[in-house]
Amino acid sequence: VPRSGIVTLLTDFGTEDYFVGAMKGVVLKQFPGAVLVDITHHIPRHDISAAAFALSAACRNFPPGTVHLAVVDPGVGTNRRPLIVESEEHFFVGPDNGIFSLVLRRDRNASIRMITNAAFFLPEISFTFHGRDIFSPVAAALGRGEPIGHFGPAIDDPVCFESYANELTADGSLKGSVLHIDHFGNCVTSFFSNELRITGVAKEVRLRAKGYCIERVCESYQEGAAKEGVPFLIVGSAGYLEISIAQSSAARELNLVVGEPLFLEVF
Amino acid sequence: VPRSGIVTLLTDFGTEDYFVGAMKGVVLKQFPGAVLVDITHHIPRHDISAAAFALSAACRNFPPGTVHLAVVDPGVGTNRRPLIVESEEHFFVGPDNGIFSLVLRRDRNASIRMITNAAFFLPEISFTFHGRDIFSPVAAALGRGEPIGHFGPAIDDPVCFESYANELTADGSLKGSVLHIDHFGNCVTSFFSNELRITGVAKEVRLRAKGYCIERVCESYQEGAAKEGVPFLIVGSAGYLEISIAQSSAARELNLVVGEPLFLEVF
Amino acid sequence: VPRSGIVTLLTDFGTEDYFVGAMKGVVLKQFPGAVLVDITHHIPRHDISAAAFALSAACRNFPPGTVHLAVVDPGVGTNRRPLIVESEEHFFVGPDNGIFSLVLRRDRNASIRMITNAAFFLPEISFTFHGRDIFSPVAAALGRGEPIGHFGPAIDDPVCFESYANELTADGSLKGSVLHIDHFGNCVTSFFSNELRITGVAKEVRLRAKGYCIERVCESYQEGAAKEGVPFLIVGSAGYLEISIAQSSAARELNLVVGEPLFLEVF
Repeated sequence: VPRSGIVTLLTDFGTEDYFVGAMKGVVLKQFPGAVLVDITHHIPRHDISAAAFALSAACRNFPPGTVHLAVVDPGVGTNRRPLIVESEEHFFVGPDNGIFSLVLRRDRNASIRMITNAAFFLPEISFTFHGRDIFSPVAAALGRGEPIGHFGPAIDDPVCFESYANELTADGSLKGSVLHIDHFGNCVTSFFSNELRITGVAKEVRLRAKGYCIERVCESYQEGAAKEGVPFLIVGSAGYLEISIAQSSAARELNLVVGEPLFLEVF
Repeated sequence: VPRSGIVTLLTDFGTEDYFVGAMKGVVLKQFPGAVLVDITHHIPRHDISAAAFALSAACRNFPPGTVHLAVVDPGVGTNRRPLIVESEEHFFVGPDNGIFSLVLRRDRNASIRMITNAAFFLPEISFTFHGRDIFSPVAAALGRGEPIGHFGPAIDDPVCFESYANELTADGSLKGSVLHIDHFGNCVTSFFSNELRITGVAKEVRLRAKGYCIERVCESYQEGAAKEGVPFLIVGSAGYLEISIAQSSAARELNLVVGEPLFLEVF
Repeated sequence: VPRSGIVTLLTDFGTEDYFVGAMKGVVLKQFPGAVLVDITHHIPRHDISAAAFALSAACRNFPPGTVHLAVVDPGVGTNRRPLIVESEEHFFVGPDNGIFSLVLRRDRNASIRMITNAAFFLPEISFTFHGRDIFSPVAAALGRGEPIGHFGPAIDDPVCFESYANELTADGSLKGSVLHIDHFGNCVTSFFSNELRITGVAKEVRLRAKGYCIERVCESYQEGAAKEGVPFLIVGSAGYLEISIAQSSAARELNLVVGEPLFLEVF
């Protein structure tokens, strides 16, 4: 895959410290001309699930051959594996802790490598900052065009959040879960609209969560707002089916948390 | 106008979500080599007035041929028009809701187009994220050199905040208003120093606001601090006359809000 | 020194206002093709010490020939000098207020120039925003390759924080101080690990602070966490010896503040 020259960054480091600047310095030193783009550095600390969602939502807007450096890494310093994932002509670099769950769920043919070749690392590896010392130089080398086979052996057992995989149940419904809750309390589900062929036309859908059953599908928040307090389903801007309540927090009203099981029937 | 290759971004999306990253991905995908610069993504949510001020204050520092993508868009999903403005060799892309009021006030010869040509949009348009689906690809095409005539018809009735236009009153004073209040409580007025020829030399100015009359003009905050608690006028770094009180909030002390009418006499 | 084309930015301006965008516009206008990288804009307001630390920690990851624009400038508008520092093939631009203390401490052969040549400034200089009007265009010119001799005369008396210079005491210990306290309460000391040859192997170190004496050296925070509540020394990711307490704030527990004298013995 020819490279785009773009390296995106997604971390939970915040922007108050020198950490993100140091990572960018390393990438630019090893890959002059790299185009650096921040996805976000404000993932809640150690929230791998939020990182997986943001990565999955943003990456598909970038050109093929882009390298996505994703470091939310509560296990830094332990023996968790560093990974490269190649999926649909995009490259992902980060720890093996579930952060690539959504990318991997969408693409069963992704290539996954464990990063073992220390020739790509900085000469000195700190105990606490692999984002700078391991992941950044690897992302730089990938961005320059280094083939993924040079970084380490293929693996096929990456950490994936189980709740992210929808599965068909005995009664014919699809079992999924709440992937992410946004700032407005909208609950992003694991049901991706492209897979379900849910569009504005085919509205025949029923979603069960806890004791609730939601059948109302809206095309816009305005349409949803017509019935105050009544939950509705909407395809959100990231392409996932979301549970929403106009002027309110669906998560709070329906008492939903990340990982909550959901059951979907499409007619 | 030859393009600079620079695309600036100004939104109220914050930097916690994937939104800004997604917009940048779209711009880079359609305009490889674009140089992306954030003005700010921390405009208070839906505060079009603050966005208009920040855009106007920052844009003039960029080279000619720069595209400024400005998305503070409470009306997304309604029939508010998407616009391109070409003014003084800069290009502006965003919703028609007053966000370009200050840019347009300074340049009566600006060209304004309504964006209608869907060939420039992403294939799928979400209801909630036109920043990504409409404005970003249009900014990319503009940045690549596409002439503004290709995007849609000329219009001459853009939404402009009326209070932004100073007008001469019967008694010979200039009627303007408070444009913006900054974090220190300084009140940025609609009086642009270049227009008024107010410099350090010509200090003969009188400004009336509510019951107050301010005649003191200072060249620096230090000079202003010499008289504690006494309001003074100063030309701020954005070029506008500001009302300030040393070590205090002029907005709070003088009870001024955005839009408050002001009357200026220059001798 | 050939230039890398990179200009980094470090300020206390925050990202809510148009200030950082305006600085970037100026740099790009005068140095088309510059690669701009934010270190951070969230240095606590006027905290020169925090800026000195972040600058020193991040700069060494960038390629030689990089220009670092560092503007934390409580004295803007007074007669504090604007400076250029050339050290170890990096260039630094900012006010003469101690912000370069750590850079200068590491390199006794740095070249320092007072910026006096107004030909490099913007045509109009505001009283309050030298970051845009003086430092940005100077950084742009430096980045384009202008030799430092063109900007003004050499000086040899820059403002440096005295507490930053470790000194040998009569009893053979090294006197230093607390440089910086991070968000977790870890106390970054003025003892740079490279200078001390403290590695995982040579653990024979004793540090005295106030009434305390710390002899425990850990290689990782995990190792440190084995003894809850017991302070330990660790080489932090910026290369300095740090005082840390697992799951707690060493600064609070040991009552340490920035500038606190420390005494180190290495055996």
